[in-house]
Amino acid sequence: MSESIKIVEKKTIPSEAKMIVGLPDVGLVGLIATSYLISELNLEEIAYMDSDLLPPVVVLHKGLPHAPLRFYGNKNLIAVISELAVPAPAIFPVMQKIMDWGQAKKVKTVVSMGGIPVENRQSITEPKVFGAASNQELLDELTKKGVSIMNEGYMVGPQALSMRYSINKNIPSIAILAQSFYNYPDPQAAAIALKELAKISDVKVDVSKLLEKGEEIRLKARDIMKRTQEEMTRMKKSQEYDLPLYV
Amino acid sequence: MSESIKIVEKKTIPSEAKMIVGLPDVGLVGLIATSYLISELNLEEIAYMDSDLLPPVVVLHKGLPHAPLRFYGNKNLIAVISELAVPAPAIFPVMQKIMDWGQAKKVKTVVSMGGIPVENRQSITEPKVFGAASNQELLDELTKKGVSIMNEGYMVGPQALSMRYSINKNIPSIAILAQSFYNYPDPQAAAIALKELAKISDVKVDVSKLLEKGEEIRLKARDIMKRTQEEMTRMKKSQEYDLPLYV
Amino acid sequence: MSESIKIVEKKTIPSEAKMIVGLPDVGLVGLIATSYLISELNLEEIAYMDSDLLPPVVVLHKGLPHAPLRFYGNKNLIAVISELAVPAPAIFPVMQKIMDWGQAKKVKTVVSMGGIPVENRQSITEPKVFGAASNQELLDELTKKGVSIMNEGYMVGPQALSMRYSINKNIPSIAILAQSFYNYPDPQAAAIALKELAKISDVKVDVSKLLEKGEEIRLKARDIMKRTQEEMTRMKKSQEYDLPLYV
Amino acid sequence: MSESIKIVEKKTIPSEAKMIVGLPDVGLVGLIATSYLISELNLEEIAYMDSDLLPPVVVLHKGLPHAPLRFYGNKNLIAVISELAVPAPAIFPVMQKIMDWGQAKKVKTVVSMGGIPVENRQSITEPKVFGAASNQELLDELTKKGVSIMNEGYMVGPQALSMRYSINKNIPSIAILAQSFYNYPDPQAAAIALKELAKISDVKVDVSKLLEKGEEIRLKARDIMKRTQEEMTRMKKSQEYDLPLYV
Amino acid sequence: MSESIKIVEKKTIPSEAKMIVGLPDVGLVGLIATSYLISELNLEEIAYMDSDLLPPVVVLHKGLPHAPLRFYGNKNLIAVISELAVPAPAIFPVMQKIMDWGQAKKVKTVVSMGGIPVENRQSITEPKVFGAASNQELLDELTKKGVSIMNEGYMVGPQALSMRYSINKNIPSIAILAQSFYNYPDPQAAAIALKELAKISDVKVDVSKLLEKGEEIRLKARDIMKRTQEEMTRMKKSQEYDLPLYV
Repeated sequence: MSESIKIVEKKTIPSEAKMIVGLPDVGLVGLIATSYLISELNLEEIAYMDSDLLPPVVVLHKGLPHAPLRFYGNKNLIAVISELAVPAPAIFPVMQKIMDWGQAKKVKTVVSMGGIPVENRQSITEPKVFGAASNQELLDELTKKGVSIMNEGYMVGPQALSMRYSINKNIPSIAILAQSFYNYPDPQAAAIALKELAKISDVKVDVSKLLEKGEEIRLKARDIMKRTQEEMTRMKKSQEYDLPLYV
Repeated sequence: MSESIKIVEKKTIPSEAKMIVGLPDVGLVGLIATSYLISELNLEEIAYMDSDLLPPVVVLHKGLPHAPLRFYGNKNLIAVISELAVPAPAIFPVMQKIMDWGQAKKVKTVVSMGGIPVENRQSITEPKVFGAASNQELLDELTKKGVSIMNEGYMVGPQALSMRYSINKNIPSIAILAQSFYNYPDPQAAAIALKELAKISDVKVDVSKLLEKGEEIRLKARDIMKRTQEEMTRMKKSQEYDLPLYV
Repeated sequence: MSESIKIVEKKTIPSEAKMIVGLPDVGLVGLIATSYLISELNLEEIAYMDSDLLPPVVVLHKGLPHAPLRFYGNKNLIAVISELAVPAPAIFPVMQKIMDWGQAKKVKTVVSMGGIPVENRQSITEPKVFGAASNQELLDELTKKGVSIMNEGYMVGPQALSMRYSINKNIPSIAILAQSFYNYPDPQAAAIALKELAKISDVKVDVSKLLEKGEEIRLKARDIMKRTQEEMTRMKKSQEYDLPLYV
Repeated sequence: MSESIKIVEKKTIPSEAKMIVGLPDVGLVGLIATSYLISELNLEEIAYMDSDLLPPVVVLHKGLPHAPLRFYGNKNLIAVISELAVPAPAIFPVMQKIMDWGQAKKVKTVVSMGGIPVENRQSITEPKVFGAASNQELLDELTKKGVSIMNEGYMVGPQALSMRYSINKNIPSIAILAQSFYNYPDPQAAAIALKELAKISDVKVDVSKLLEKGEEIRLKARDIMKRTQEEMTRMKKSQEYDLPLYV
Repeated sequence: MSESIKIVEKKTIPSEAKMIVGLPDVGLVGLIATSYLISELNLEEIAYMDSDLLPPVVVLHKGLPHAPLRFYGNKNLIAVISELAVPAPAIFPVMQKIMDWGQAKKVKTVVSMGGIPVENRQSITEPKVFGAASNQELLDELTKKGVSIMNEGYMVGPQALSMRYSINKNIPSIAILAQSFYNYPDPQAAAIALKELAKISDVKVDVSKLLEKGEEIRLKARDIMKRTQEEMTRMKKSQEYDLPLYV
């Protein structure tokens, strides 16, 4: 199956970079946050994914066609976004390919950003953010930098596989999870996730514009949110906040 | 899978031709426009697609059987139409085969014509047309010739893959997108797309007969429109006009 | 897939014969007509299809088991019938196998008989018959013999593939299409198709018994008609009479 | 696919035996009859089928696990039963494997027992039994022994394939078909089938206990009947009594 | 398929250990019992399953990611749990892999714990427990130790395959089946299963804490119970208590 997925490189890919993953998921938190990063840091498109496992779609920006799943970067950063929900049956090979390619590019750390749905999101003024990490040392470091740890819980979908394949490849990996709506685009949760990212790394952006453009983003993201929700359902990612059973 | 698709050549295929793609899609704009071109320019059938991935159908014209997906041409033009909606699962291999074959025939440019659905189509007297192109030079050329550029948007289905595979093969590629009904055959949109094509190329036809035969075409195309709509749904091509998220 | 289909020969197969194809389809016209031919001409079973692509069914005649898809023949005739609707996913390999085998037996002509649904069938006293042919010479011959030509239209399913594969193999092929009910067995249409067959070939039978047994056949064929209808739906063969779009 | 099916032998398998097939089917006639035979003749378990094509089920008898599809035997008899409906997609490879194995064991005759549904079963005091056979000699023999012949009809599912593969392998094969309920376990029909078996072979058992235990069997068999019905539906085995069309 | 399943070892795996299997099933009896064992005996995680056949899920415990299907152990014990219902299509390769790996580790005995649904569970104060075993000697041993034998019945799913593959590999295997709710987590049934395990082995834990935490466990296990129920349905594991037919 992996033969039907290619990553086509358009520019020199930075070596030993930090890779930030923001694929469509709960509240589109990771996608909104990472897209904003790309825009604020003026990252340029360095590669894209070409695969028959993704829907037959091309995205137009300024009249020019783009693949929906693209890689942006500068000297020490690679950011992955997709303007299309990854179909549930494709999530394994797509994530595997991204991480294989990341390993080939000697990525130093992987940070995935995402949302954790909370039922009463609308009554929360300031969503909480939690962290998880692939090993105890990283986890201690997060704690030291003031990140609350997500002690018990499930990760499902892109973030789960980002973490799983990172571990298989011995690439240090961090997950940032902001409380968010389940199926409404949540720019505020994205902004808070970015603040947490700034705490633990040198990737720092001013999120004020993101908060200002909140309503506009919510409108533009309505359709991709709807499709993302369908795929989450197929991945059996439920709206409820689940606790693992382990007694 | 590609083994189960063949393009059977009936005549000498022109080399270094312009290829015009008009497969069933939104409002059947591309199909109606390209069929009309074939008829007006007296293009002759030069090849057809033979594949078990397409439905078990034969089309009769003047008592003689034809494959539904056919290639017409003259010395410097190849036109592709299908009198049958391409089933969603077959869209990748079918488009791949068409473009592989086009590359083998040293096609110089690919122009795909199609529709973009607008909600209030019935209240629009003169639909707008937009262009997109595979690179900046082509895009500038379109602008110079007075074509409005489709700045932000999605292309889904045949036109998306026509563009995607052209880029992979370094074949200059243009998309012409006319505002149209989503699921009613739209000969007027087809006529306007043809006018735009005349602006940017030497493929020029008088569209008056197309406009006159509007009602007749709408009736004849009812069934293929219905089936095309089913396949668009399976490709998740929605009726709404979507804006990409990229912040 | 073709490995899972075998044609088992029970008798010597005639060489350079005319092959008549009557598989379950619209109104069971072809099946009823061909079965009647077999019975009137006392053709004997010469081969049958053995395949896991067909349902797990055996037909009993006089207490002895038979495959549902069988070949009958005499010195210069091969007739193909199936007492079971061919499942839509099997239609390609089944028809391919029949025509491959026909080619190996040096079949000279293929004649498929079938129905074309008309909405007001019950108010038609004498259904019309139309012909189509794989090349212009044959078509002219049909016209000369008084056959009306089916100028514009679609063929879907067994008849479409019979025609398609004949063309691929350069075997002259004729389709006889009688106006008929869509989903009621139509012995009258079958009788009229046989009369047309008599016009264009030396295969001539008295159809009076077929017309007399009309009611009995309709009753016996109720179940196979129902199943055939299911498969026609899966092949997207609609009840409406469609006109191709080609402008 | 056949690699994923094994028949595991637990005892020496008799050579040149008669093989009796009683898989779940209409009214569970064959299964009930064959199970009763096994019990009355004290046949011992000699082999079982091990396959991932069958559901993940183990049957407990006296606390010990058994495969659902098992072979019992003595010196000159092999009896096949399954305490689980064979899933429709597995019916081809399962029957193929049983008959391949039977052939390897030089089985002399195959007798399959089953039911044919009659609509008014509840008003029939003494169900009728019919026979069918793989060749004319066998059929004449059945007639001589007083068996009514099933002149026209369909066999669907295990009995059809038992007959089909026997013919392919030149193993003489008989089908015994008792009138029965379609989807209620029918021990009376099973008893009558056994009586018919006694007529044509030396396999003779007293069926009085079977008739006495009727109600108990009906209760125990309720669940397997329900699942068998689901699989019959998937095999398109209808409740109606069909007549083949062949005119 | 087995290539896509790996068991990744994190610690030295004990050789010749007893393997206890507690995968999600009826009432989550096996999972709750085995999880409690792991916690009470302070077993450490020694291996986990890595497979694309399992959903894209990672479980967080104390901020660190874990695979849902994990192996715990000490010097002479291996315990298998999954915090995720095994999808029905994956049950064969997953169980096969677990048992292959167990065989490679020279496992001496396999004990699977599970529930058997009883309709009136809520009116039963003390659920009964039954045993089954892969051979008569083991069964006699169970009886000697005071275990009631499950004389007649079906095992479906993980326990069935645990038993089936153990037999294929000649590994002595025991099933412990406690009466339980079908689709409510049943910690009391788990406690009683553990008491029975203590009778027949040296694996003994005090179940009082398990009973105390009953309500908490039921709440935490709600979601995994719901998903397990879906998979049981797909495995055709019904809520009713079935008796095998074998007459």
